Amino acid sequence: MNGINTEGMRRDADKIIEAAIHAVLPDQAVQRALEGRSFSGKVVLIAIGKAGWQMAKAASEVLEDRIDHGVVITKYGHVMGEIPGCSCFEAGHPVPDEHSFAATQAAIEAVKDLGAEDTVLFLVSGGGSALFEQPYISGEELQNITGQLLASGADIVEMNTIRKRLSRVKGGRFAQLCAPAKVVSIILSDIIGDPLDMIASGPACADRSTCMEAEEIVRKYQLKISEEAEVCIHRETPKKLENVENIINGSVRELCRAAADACTVLGYHPVLLTDRLCCQAREAGSFLASILKTHAQDGEKTAFLAGGETIVKLTGSGKGGRNQELALAAAEGIEGLAAAVFSVGSDGTDGPTDAAGGYVDGTTAAKLREKGFSVSEVLQNNDAYHALQAVSGLIFTGPTGTNVNDVAVALLDPAILQEQTR
Amino acid sequence: MNGINTEGMRRDADKIIEAAIHAVLPDQAVQRALEGRSFSGKVVLIAIGKAGWQMAKAASEVLEDRIDHGVVITKYGHVMGEIPGCSCFEAGHPVPDEHSFAATQAAIEAVKDLGAEDTVLFLVSGGGSALFEQPYISGEELQNITGQLLASGADIVEMNTIRKRLSRVKGGRFAQLCAPAKVVSIILSDIIGDPLDMIASGPACADRSTCMEAEEIVRKYQLKISEEAEVCIHRETPKKLENVENIINGSVRELCRAAADACTVLGYHPVLLTDRLCCQAREAGSFLASILKTHAQDGEKTAFLAGGETIVKLTGSGKGGRNQELALAAAEGIEGLAAAVFSVGSDGTDGPTDAAGGYVDGTTAAKLREKGFSVSEVLQNNDAYHALQAVSGLIFTGPTGTNVNDVAVALLDPAILQEQTR
Repeated sequence: MNGINTEGMRRDADKIIEAAIHAVLPDQAVQRALEGRSFSGKVVLIAIGKAGWQMAKAASEVLEDRIDHGVVITKYGHVMGEIPGCSCFEAGHPVPDEHSFAATQAAIEAVKDLGAEDTVLFLVSGGGSALFEQPYISGEELQNITGQLLASGADIVEMNTIRKRLSRVKGGRFAQLCAPAKVVSIILSDIIGDPLDMIASGPACADRSTCMEAEEIVRKYQLKISEEAEVCIHRETPKKLENVENIINGSVRELCRAAADACTVLGYHPVLLTDRLCCQAREAGSFLASILKTHAQDGEKTAFLAGGETIVKLTGSGKGGRNQELALAAAEGIEGLAAAVFSVGSDGTDGPTDAAGGYVDGTTAAKLREKGFSVSEVLQNNDAYHALQAVSGLIFTGPTGTNVNDVAVALLDPAILQEQTR
Repeated sequence: MNGINTEGMRRDADKIIEAAIHAVLPDQAVQRALEGRSFSGKVVLIAIGKAGWQMAKAASEVLEDRIDHGVVITKYGHVMGEIPGCSCFEAGHPVPDEHSFAATQAAIEAVKDLGAEDTVLFLVSGGGSALFEQPYISGEELQNITGQLLASGADIVEMNTIRKRLSRVKGGRFAQLCAPAKVVSIILSDIIGDPLDMIASGPACADRSTCMEAEEIVRKYQLKISEEAEVCIHRETPKKLENVENIINGSVRELCRAAADACTVLGYHPVLLTDRLCCQAREAGSFLASILKTHAQDGEKTAFLAGGETIVKLTGSGKGGRNQELALAAAEGIEGLAAAVFSVGSDGTDGPTDAAGGYVDGTTAAKLREKGFSVSEVLQNNDAYHALQAVSGLIFTGPTGTNVNDVAVALLDPAILQEQTR
């Protein structure tokens, strides 16, 4: 009978996770994007979102005194110190508040009167939609209209079609305010597929929605809006932006790529399956286990990677997260194989737990049985945390300071198969 | 904007399906296994299972008068004519009846008194467990014990541990009866992973379960059994068989391999993901769509293959099958891409429908919307059949005469992207 020693695999997993998350830290993403880039005129820095301060700090370290002036807008408690030449603001999230509006006004003023040779370095991260806002209407009416849309069952596309028209900066309008200066936008994306018009509601992205569509939505849901708002609805957003360059440099794609590179370094042949995963966590775990079972006999050291954001269906009241469920769901499928499956959230927080994700290998199912856990019961009760905890299957990274979704890795290492006396 | 013409892709899908199913037809599987093989002594043919007659017929056509004599045991209505030298029996399925016992007795007698130079050509297909049975106890008690095990919640492994001991042919005992003759077993497998001891309860497969385990099961469930049965429980099954060669030549693996070969012929680079798929049908469809979305920009004509047997969770009362649900669940994910996803059951019957499976491509989601279908509602109501029917997305093959599970294929063909005026 074959036995397996999976200690090395667990060490590999930890190395892969560390390398992958390191690559998508806000400062790394900014540094990579700025590498070898030079600017002719003035450089104005505008950083928005939850990682706004880190991104701005990194840019300031790379560009040093090339930054003329700047505005940083992030969540309360997220400013960690001064950044030379920059005003740092903290504001409301997820609902914009007066501080959001005031800080955004400061950003609008910071990009005024620039020339065609100047550059606005626009650093965007998750949460930008609430933090970066300056409505044409009052904050109260903005909240009221958002409430009406939510209550009427409007979808996210309809919501954005209206909200972009009520905003001075969303739907490409911020890039218009920067013109004729060039906008170089470096983006840390937490939305699968990186839809530019969705990330922070696309302040530097040409808008595809039209006034006609907006008017239709007002009619359809019989929205009650002021005359001021009525005027906004009829004001078209930019359909083309000549002055913008978007660089998505921290996203689940980079997370996967960095994980794949780390696999290569450790001798695994990496196979990127997808960076758009969006199915149920436990079914993704089962699918990955099926792949490992099929290829276990190939004799090659291989790593299959799947990035994205899976879904957990709540059927119980236990403790866990999507990454823990994904890993646990693979445990029985890979039992006895020289294989491991692990999944981790790049923000270091998987669901409402202190773990970043979960790890299982060919020995885990037997260990779980020994400790009295039934995988199907644990999954039914959404209690992956306690089961994985009992078999040292939790992954801890602590909060990482970035958020570009999750990556799951399925490893095969035939070299760990050992003849075992029975 | 890019438009796509998917007509060629649909034709490719039909060709791939035809080639894949052809390769796993019972006669093809037998012919492939017998190719170039020669026998020295007598050849006795024993064929059991739903495809028993077709397999025996194919063997008889290849070996002609090399077959000395034979016994074929299949389901009622499945004998299609005479096979030279063979006695053809029809018997009960899924519950064995007196005809099963009588036919099996004939098979036991057919392999008596053979020499070491002789060969029993043993052709096995699904349903063999009921059709090929000769219990040491009465048929009534066999049914009674099976009923007790079912009622007590015994799992399939426990059931088999008991049943193998009550049978003259299961758990490797038929191979023992054939000794010293060689047993060449050609297997058409309908169980994922091809566990030899599960297929037809392993008449020619050394048994891994032990008498001690069987005794423990009798105690655990407090089974009421006769003295005759008690004796059987203590009689060990063969742990090693020196005279057997097992050839699994029709299984989901061959189905996938043949589909991959057909993809190659059509210019697609085939990537076999798994032949062990067992997750929820709709989640597998979503996973495949994620893979296509990630690789759509690679610019390569590629086919991702996943074989196995997915699960449908019944949440509605519509009409459909697991292959139709898998395909439909991929429709929205691949919208607008030069991609297709299709899935088909090798038996030609997907769920309780007349379709073999379903097909969607980059144009399907829009067509469904036009016709008023919401994919999520259709899936919720398990009504994939009617939605796919409305967009020519059903695949029909008619009953194929084989059953080696399903294969799903995800195609990318960048060449079908066309610039379209808008």
